[in-house]
Amino acid sequence: MGARHEERRRQIAEALLAIIDLHGLDAVSLRDVAARAEVSLGAVQHYFRSKDEMLLFALDYISERGTERVRRSLGQGEQPPRAVLRDILAELVPADDQRRAELRIATAFTARSLVSPKLADHLRAGYDSLYDVLVLLIRHAQEADEMPAGLDPERTAAALFALAEGLGMQVLIGHRNPRTALAILDEHLDRLSTTAS
Amino acid sequence: MGARHEERRRQIAEALLAIIDLHGLDAVSLRDVAARAEVSLGAVQHYFRSKDEMLLFALDYISERGTERVRRSLGQGEQPPRAVLRDILAELVPADDQRRAELRIATAFTARSLVSPKLADHLRAGYDSLYDVLVLLIRHAQEADEMPAGLDPERTAAALFALAEGLGMQVLIGHRNPRTALAILDEHLDRLSTTAS
Repeated sequence: MGARHEERRRQIAEALLAIIDLHGLDAVSLRDVAARAEVSLGAVQHYFRSKDEMLLFALDYISERGTERVRRSLGQGEQPPRAVLRDILAELVPADDQRRAELRIATAFTARSLVSPKLADHLRAGYDSLYDVLVLLIRHAQEADEMPAGLDPERTAAALFALAEGLGMQVLIGHRNPRTALAILDEHLDRLSTTAS
Repeated sequence: MGARHEERRRQIAEALLAIIDLHGLDAVSLRDVAARAEVSLGAVQHYFRSKDEMLLFALDYISERGTERVRRSLGQGEQPPRAVLRDILAELVPADDQRRAELRIATAFTARSLVSPKLADHLRAGYDSLYDVLVLLIRHAQEADEMPAGLDPERTAAALFALAEGLGMQVLIGHRNPRTALAILDEHLDRLSTTAS
């Protein structure tokens, strides 16, 4: 893919996210996205032709953006695995407007995936691969003596993943503020790191 | 409210849940609900006139049904607070078809509440009051020496609530099976009960 192609893709994705954020998912049309991105309808249709494809496109884009943020926050060189683990989990809690907009879209996607097997497959695959990354990081943290060897990496990853996701949802709907949510996540990580078994 | 009124309300609610479960939320019309419940359109409109009111009605109904299940599972007489706490948290994990259908509806409601302030208020109030119940149960469990006095009831309730909600979502989308999810929840409760601080 050329740089121009990449730039156009980014342009369309940003327009799409802005419209969803302003008007909600139901109101978006391909035509609106084209107008806001200042490209032709044909250019938009190159990336998605239906609402489901549009959501897939948006979800892939925000997932890349999240990965990029984690990469940047970790900076250059090797980071301790526990810090990487914490950064990835914290991405699930919407602590600013950008993450909030992203989680709104992910939630719309989840709701829609409950009646669309194709979206459901995509979503499940995303969860599975994020879970695999968490398990791997916990193993590395154990090898680096940052987490107790006695912890079951899979169970621990599953619990941390679910906790972060639940906190994210509760922040999104306004039941909890982001600062407390992140403090709860950190407490849980600290407790795990000092548990004997 | 008379018994006949209650019966009609139940009839309409069950028809609504069945249609949402079969065809998804987008496809439901008030007319379909009336037909399936074998009542007049006017009777349905007595309970809800718009899609948002319909969702509110469905959500209130499944929330009552959940409360009723907890009550039944706890049986007659006083139960230890920790058992009540566990039962309420387990309700958030869809371990059978009925709970699965309910959580699908709750998820549709959540997604819609992100673009509807009225629904958002209702949802937040529901979260807040469930959270209050959890805090209260943890305090009772501490008084009954079932949980360590050193635990912060509010932080503990928040973490348990988020964990159970995240697990429920991950079961719903098929990332995790209900048995493992409930085991993770129980492990977490056990670890809390044996923690010193």
